[in-house]
Amino acid sequence: MSQPTLPIAVDAMGGDRAPAEIVAGAVRAHTELGIPVVLVGRPEDLDGAGLDVIPATEVIAMDADPTQGVRRLKDSSLVRAAEAVRDGKASAMVSAGNTGATMGSALLRMGRIKGVARPAIATPIPCPGADTPTVMLDAGANAECQAAWLVQFAQMGAVFARERYGIATPKVGLLSIGEEPGKGDSLRKEAYKLLGEAGVEFIGNVEGRDLMSPDVDVVVTDGFTGNVALKTLEGGMRALVGALAGAFATDDASRAAADALMPALLPLYAQLDPDSTGGAMLLGVDGVCIISHGSSSATAMVNAIEVAADMVTGDVVAHLARAVGAPA
Amino acid sequence: MSQPTLPIAVDAMGGDRAPAEIVAGAVRAHTELGIPVVLVGRPEDLDGAGLDVIPATEVIAMDADPTQGVRRLKDSSLVRAAEAVRDGKASAMVSAGNTGATMGSALLRMGRIKGVARPAIATPIPCPGADTPTVMLDAGANAECQAAWLVQFAQMGAVFARERYGIATPKVGLLSIGEEPGKGDSLRKEAYKLLGEAGVEFIGNVEGRDLMSPDVDVVVTDGFTGNVALKTLEGGMRALVGALAGAFATDDASRAAADALMPALLPLYAQLDPDSTGGAMLLGVDGVCIISHGSSSATAMVNAIEVAADMVTGDVVAHLARAVGAPA
Repeated sequence: MSQPTLPIAVDAMGGDRAPAEIVAGAVRAHTELGIPVVLVGRPEDLDGAGLDVIPATEVIAMDADPTQGVRRLKDSSLVRAAEAVRDGKASAMVSAGNTGATMGSALLRMGRIKGVARPAIATPIPCPGADTPTVMLDAGANAECQAAWLVQFAQMGAVFARERYGIATPKVGLLSIGEEPGKGDSLRKEAYKLLGEAGVEFIGNVEGRDLMSPDVDVVVTDGFTGNVALKTLEGGMRALVGALAGAFATDDASRAAADALMPALLPLYAQLDPDSTGGAMLLGVDGVCIISHGSSSATAMVNAIEVAADMVTGDVVAHLARAVGAPA
Repeated sequence: MSQPTLPIAVDAMGGDRAPAEIVAGAVRAHTELGIPVVLVGRPEDLDGAGLDVIPATEVIAMDADPTQGVRRLKDSSLVRAAEAVRDGKASAMVSAGNTGATMGSALLRMGRIKGVARPAIATPIPCPGADTPTVMLDAGANAECQAAWLVQFAQMGAVFARERYGIATPKVGLLSIGEEPGKGDSLRKEAYKLLGEAGVEFIGNVEGRDLMSPDVDVVVTDGFTGNVALKTLEGGMRALVGALAGAFATDDASRAAADALMPALLPLYAQLDPDSTGGAMLLGVDGVCIISHGSSSATAMVNAIEVAADMVTGDVVAHLARAVGAPA
């Protein structure tokens, strides 16, 4: 498979397990997959990895205020990674760091694709038993949205589902509280009307229960609702898996039975493991920006870097620009 | 335990499994728990149950438009059940029927508690391993909300958590997309300021992942977000449980191991079974209105009728009125 000419800029300082797991993932992506990679961070922390380094002396903490972080920490790994893409020194950026600051850095340094009103975070949600996940956007970039932005989210989400998952004609649904066209708040009612003319395969309203179903490929919503839905799902899965683990450990007989079930449970576990998804993509900025979850392991980073490389070689940014009708 | 003087009006025609399961549940609530019950529905369908009947010749279908249903079908079981409460012939209404029409009937026939801007649906969400669920409201009554309404939801939700689950000082959280006060959209920011003065134990913003956690007792949100979150959780649980069932059936060894695990899994299954929760309550109407889920079994109805009786004998409507500062 062809690789990007320019390296993928990996924020080596971002994430709960940075820099060790981040660097280990970058090294694996480079050595095992042959993807060109450049680390961004404190050179003294990144010695011995055998990868090129773009120096950055500052770190935007995981819990820092994103806006202040991006404005004040101009020599931070996130800002420098975004600049590397802007300046043609890298083809994409990947970070497991502060999500808001990743978004802010990308938006401020790379800028938006012409014609895009607001970038959105597109997050893959695994569907047990299905080959491809559901892509939900916006998962949290824009707490308040206008109907016209949701239309662009639909257009960009469809491009992402096609390029990332090979779904030729992705089915796009509007997240609402009832399937009938009139259901939902005024934002949904307005967006519903516009989505019929958006140039996507719009299948109408979908509900929260459809997020993990194979019946819809792209689910469009505002960033407030999307973020609540995503975290609700994460919390629910964690609570249920935790309760199952507790039940499995009730007594020796249960433990033995649970051990016997492990081979059957492993594929499901692998599918639901957040490290498997390859991360979310910030769609609408003028460059590839992959957001991996905060507790990313080396494996999560390998997957995220591979997705970044795919998105670069697939020229997804150009496809996104065309989808929203930006001038060529 | 004392019982209501007036019977609980049970909509015998509402729900996917009406009237058989509904009537069976009403009979059990009456014979096993000694709760006075009156069935509302077509007398010819309710013969032989040995319970009093309030006749109603029409049924609002599960998928009917709620507003039209309530306006046009004045002799429907839902409208008649709400009238029975209004007219002092019943102490509460319980339905597994069309949720929107249940809400509409209750609101139009019983009216609102003085001072309540909008009624809200309070739904218990089970927390694996915890003794009490999280109460989320509004779960779908109001797609668009004002900040002042959310304050009343907090006040009413706290009363419900106290009266229904015995939580002396329920912890109330505002559902948002980040724990810091400034997080969320403009509705959340405004509500956050008001909730500090609402006379409840306001613990600040909570996130979707807290819905199934024991750290918060009452989660306040608008009806759009609440409904999306609730259905997302339901869909996620169903997808995961379905995938587990699939894994358990992989081969004979897995089936045997799963059988051995059943005793350990049953308590969790019972806790997550929607039939166990006793239904949601429409808070803010001038009477007790319990909404059971559409596929309610007889057991679900027994639990819902018992909750209705508890809410009547606990005089919850008066407590709600005091909580929102309504004139006595």
